[in-house]
Amino acid sequence: MVDYQRTHTCGALRKNDVGSEIRLSGWVHRRRDHGGLIFIDLRDRYGLTQIVFRPTDHPEFHEKASHLRGEWVISVKGKVIPRAEGMINPSLKTGEIEIEVLEFAILSQAKTPPFSICDENITVNEELRLKYRYLDIRRGDVTKRLLVRHRAMLLTRNYLDKQGFTEITTPILGKSSPEGARDYLIPSRIYPGSFYALPQAPQIFKQLLMISGMDRYFQIATCFRDEDLRADRQPEFTQIDLEMSFGTQETLFPILEGLMIEIFNNCKGIKSTSPFRHMTYHDAMDKYGTDKPDLRFGMEFHDLSDIAEKSTFSIFLDELKRGNKVKGFCVKGGTDISRKMIDEHTLLVKKFGLQGLAWIKLKESGPTSTITKFFEEPLLDSLIKRVGAETGDLIFLASAPDKILCQSLDHLRRHLANKRNLIDPTRFEFLWITDFPLFQWDAESQSLACEHNPFTSPHPDDIHLLDTDPLSARSAAYDLVLNGYEVASGACRIYDSALQDKIFTLLKLTPEEINERFGFFIEALKYGTPPHLGLAFGFDRLMMILTETDNIRDVIAFPKNQQAADLMMSAPSEAQKEQLTELKIHIHDQEETK
Amino acid sequence: MVDYQRTHTCGALRKNDVGSEIRLSGWVHRRRDHGGLIFIDLRDRYGLTQIVFRPTDHPEFHEKASHLRGEWVISVKGKVIPRAEGMINPSLKTGEIEIEVLEFAILSQAKTPPFSICDENITVNEELRLKYRYLDIRRGDVTKRLLVRHRAMLLTRNYLDKQGFTEITTPILGKSSPEGARDYLIPSRIYPGSFYALPQAPQIFKQLLMISGMDRYFQIATCFRDEDLRADRQPEFTQIDLEMSFGTQETLFPILEGLMIEIFNNCKGIKSTSPFRHMTYHDAMDKYGTDKPDLRFGMEFHDLSDIAEKSTFSIFLDELKRGNKVKGFCVKGGTDISRKMIDEHTLLVKKFGLQGLAWIKLKESGPTSTITKFFEEPLLDSLIKRVGAETGDLIFLASAPDKILCQSLDHLRRHLANKRNLIDPTRFEFLWITDFPLFQWDAESQSLACEHNPFTSPHPDDIHLLDTDPLSARSAAYDLVLNGYEVASGACRIYDSALQDKIFTLLKLTPEEINERFGFFIEALKYGTPPHLGLAFGFDRLMMILTETDNIRDVIAFPKNQQAADLMMSAPSEAQKEQLTELKIHIHDQEETK
Repeated sequence: MVDYQRTHTCGALRKNDVGSEIRLSGWVHRRRDHGGLIFIDLRDRYGLTQIVFRPTDHPEFHEKASHLRGEWVISVKGKVIPRAEGMINPSLKTGEIEIEVLEFAILSQAKTPPFSICDENITVNEELRLKYRYLDIRRGDVTKRLLVRHRAMLLTRNYLDKQGFTEITTPILGKSSPEGARDYLIPSRIYPGSFYALPQAPQIFKQLLMISGMDRYFQIATCFRDEDLRADRQPEFTQIDLEMSFGTQETLFPILEGLMIEIFNNCKGIKSTSPFRHMTYHDAMDKYGTDKPDLRFGMEFHDLSDIAEKSTFSIFLDELKRGNKVKGFCVKGGTDISRKMIDEHTLLVKKFGLQGLAWIKLKESGPTSTITKFFEEPLLDSLIKRVGAETGDLIFLASAPDKILCQSLDHLRRHLANKRNLIDPTRFEFLWITDFPLFQWDAESQSLACEHNPFTSPHPDDIHLLDTDPLSARSAAYDLVLNGYEVASGACRIYDSALQDKIFTLLKLTPEEINERFGFFIEALKYGTPPHLGLAFGFDRLMMILTETDNIRDVIAFPKNQQAADLMMSAPSEAQKEQLTELKIHIHDQEETK
Repeated sequence: MVDYQRTHTCGALRKNDVGSEIRLSGWVHRRRDHGGLIFIDLRDRYGLTQIVFRPTDHPEFHEKASHLRGEWVISVKGKVIPRAEGMINPSLKTGEIEIEVLEFAILSQAKTPPFSICDENITVNEELRLKYRYLDIRRGDVTKRLLVRHRAMLLTRNYLDKQGFTEITTPILGKSSPEGARDYLIPSRIYPGSFYALPQAPQIFKQLLMISGMDRYFQIATCFRDEDLRADRQPEFTQIDLEMSFGTQETLFPILEGLMIEIFNNCKGIKSTSPFRHMTYHDAMDKYGTDKPDLRFGMEFHDLSDIAEKSTFSIFLDELKRGNKVKGFCVKGGTDISRKMIDEHTLLVKKFGLQGLAWIKLKESGPTSTITKFFEEPLLDSLIKRVGAETGDLIFLASAPDKILCQSLDHLRRHLANKRNLIDPTRFEFLWITDFPLFQWDAESQSLACEHNPFTSPHPDDIHLLDTDPLSARSAAYDLVLNGYEVASGACRIYDSALQDKIFTLLKLTPEEINERFGFFIEALKYGTPPHLGLAFGFDRLMMILTETDNIRDVIAFPKNQQAADLMMSAPSEAQKEQLTELKIHIHDQEETK
């Protein structure tokens, strides 16, 4: 039997190991033949070590080494020797030494890979990378991300354990729920015609665990949604899911902030401080047009309605009459934005329904704009002052129904930040968004609908509004936002059955509907439910931010593509007839072509 | 808003907290009215604290408290006071103090539970416990097990991390494999007629991760099998799955032993020492008739064929002529076993095909038996000596084809150990079983079949037997056994494609069959596969042993019953028509009744 039991990894040996007899095993990263010598860069995930085969020492090894090709797996027993002067490679941790071969074995050969493993600078088609994911991981980039992911999972578990949270695994074979996104179904063989469903989240289980008295629960949970995939979605994804009893936002938030600080410090050397900033949903929409503002750059919006009202600019005046606002923001140094670029920005916001974009350039020579003529000078001055503009800056102004205005200006603001390199990629700006609306108006059914879910507690100060003005009632839901991404979302839950009944009444649900839609869970709430609240982190998203990629597939070992297929395994795939017979199901197309 | 933010849990307060103002929140465990005073045992998962309501102090609280019922959730602000002399409860950690109420709020009421939460000594029907699992957990027994489970998972993760293993989550939406048990299938909406399958184990993924160069992988993985359930099976179950590259059994076993020692020491205070005992499969079958012997008691079997051959006992002589063995073992002090009990034991082994059970009692007056007459005295002496029997002992003897003999004597040995209280429940005897057979003979197809899987490496010393006597070849597979249970199973894998081809040839698989059954994985093995080996622990089984229960459902938060149903959620359940339409599947019965 070949001995391949290494004494060191390929990243371990240093100058002070010179003279040691060692054994390394790994992959042939590169072979170089130089004046009779054969150099092998031997690789494992820990590093590279240079192996030297001299024709004189062991001619048989030298001969065998001459056949080595990339990705063959070999084991080498050898002596650590210093590299010759001038041959030292300071960019390699093992760059001061090399290995003189004493014994040598080929463990396994390798076909030529479909893409280079050793060349870092090539771009490989993603479909090909996914098909040969095992080779893609071997290239190193995904490996590094998987190591960060492992580290972050372990940190999370240890941190939450120290905070008194218990990790509890909840079922994957669950029950289909008519709420939310589309479920993946699993036909039951024992109960033909019945189905399990994969969980979209452990929401009901975590609330049940609070009813169980588990007090503080968490889980790094796999969740499933059968949705058409966007770039940053996967059919199966991961959440850090947690819930606590007898707590409030004031006790929960510091715990969660500590978790983020721990992960970002340990995995990325980013020092954040607690407490994180807080902003109400209302303020976020007002100042940034979004409930997940990126705080790494400025350009906050300002309500200019009162100023515009005194102008003679009929477009704004008309919008104001319709009850819409005029908003504007200042682009520092924005006088360099050309008319052509402004036109491009106008096209951008048009996609979101904004009809036009007004602008004022504060040049050395004075304000330039097509609209300044509608503003008397003192009015213009107060406008400039309101948005905090100075000479050299540009002001964008717009008016539209609230939703259009928010969306358009949010996109414009982020677009400008990217274009003008205003984003410091080394900054990590956490932000709590609180006080989300409890309800939204569903125009189709002409009734209230939940913004979050029907178990979310109203804001304690707004319970009186449930009777008078429910659409104005705030909820006790909150999000954690990081650099413009929602990284976590949660809420205080209703624990009082009278309040729960009131919410159902407002949602115009009959007892039958309540039972059908929420069934046993409503029953469970009646046996002594403690106040509880919780939250779920989108763990894949966090990993994307942490490892600086926009591609969710980069942070998952074996992802699906955007058509929910596993290109490596060829899944999904056809089932065997016997399997379907046992499950007592037919497939339509088969039926129809019979 | 009611303040329910506790300062302490219900298990925290001690005598030296006397005088402090505190707030507790929890469930009403019991209410006792005593001479005008109302005592509430307030409970959370950390303990019980006694609350006293005096009619004089706050009459309104006293009045409200008189309405409290079991499982209502309340919050109490109060002062810690010492209990009166004679009222101290030494069995309660908080038994020296009680709480004088300053403020008091009812947070939520509770319906009368379907079974008592506070009475520990009642037995509740398991179906009812599963239906109201959230209340069952609240009773405490399951809670304690879930806390041990959490502790064991965390210890596992930290331990394996320290050993250089990376936790990597592998897909739940996988591909159906014709090998092994029955798969759960998931119809794909995007690819009608195609199905994902839930993984029975991450076997292929972990081998791919070794091919990827991840070096050391682990995962606490949820696995799925659609099998008819035995008492200790669940449709979804948990494995500690791991794999390492460039290692051998000599490097892997100590790592795994360290993990077991860590878990059993931390969760149970059991000190085990490494290395664990080793036994070959051959020796285990020979001495114990099973590949998972319980070593907490003796009664090893002895081959008595050579002695029986010299006897005149025709039953044994006939069996020996058929090539079968005669085996026997000694029951210490077994002369107290009555003829009636021997008859019962004979009935027991009959279930496993053994026709009869011979016995010899070594009484003070000399050996008694119906068969001693067939053995001359020196022969009997050597038999007695062989099995290690002394005066007062009983010897059981039997002969049959190997499989029957092993099964029968194994069951008899364990039955006797139970009956005679030979098992020390505080002992934890780990044992490695190695050198399993590589193949078994499949009588139906008249060909070799794998004992483990076709990727399991032959024992390095037996590779020559592949050509000459493959059924005698041992594999490099191994099990970890604990107190008669298989707790882990693993193997060294084949990494050499020539050897892999040879195994496939022996299994009479054509290239087409290989491709269909193992597909892309065989391709993956060709791109530079390192030597690798691994193992999977049955985590639920481990938790059962650790928390001393025979019921797998006791160690899972929300288990299925033995008909694979979740009685709490009523899963599986009917799907909505629209869901099936989208998935393009019909259900047979619906079809047939149309």
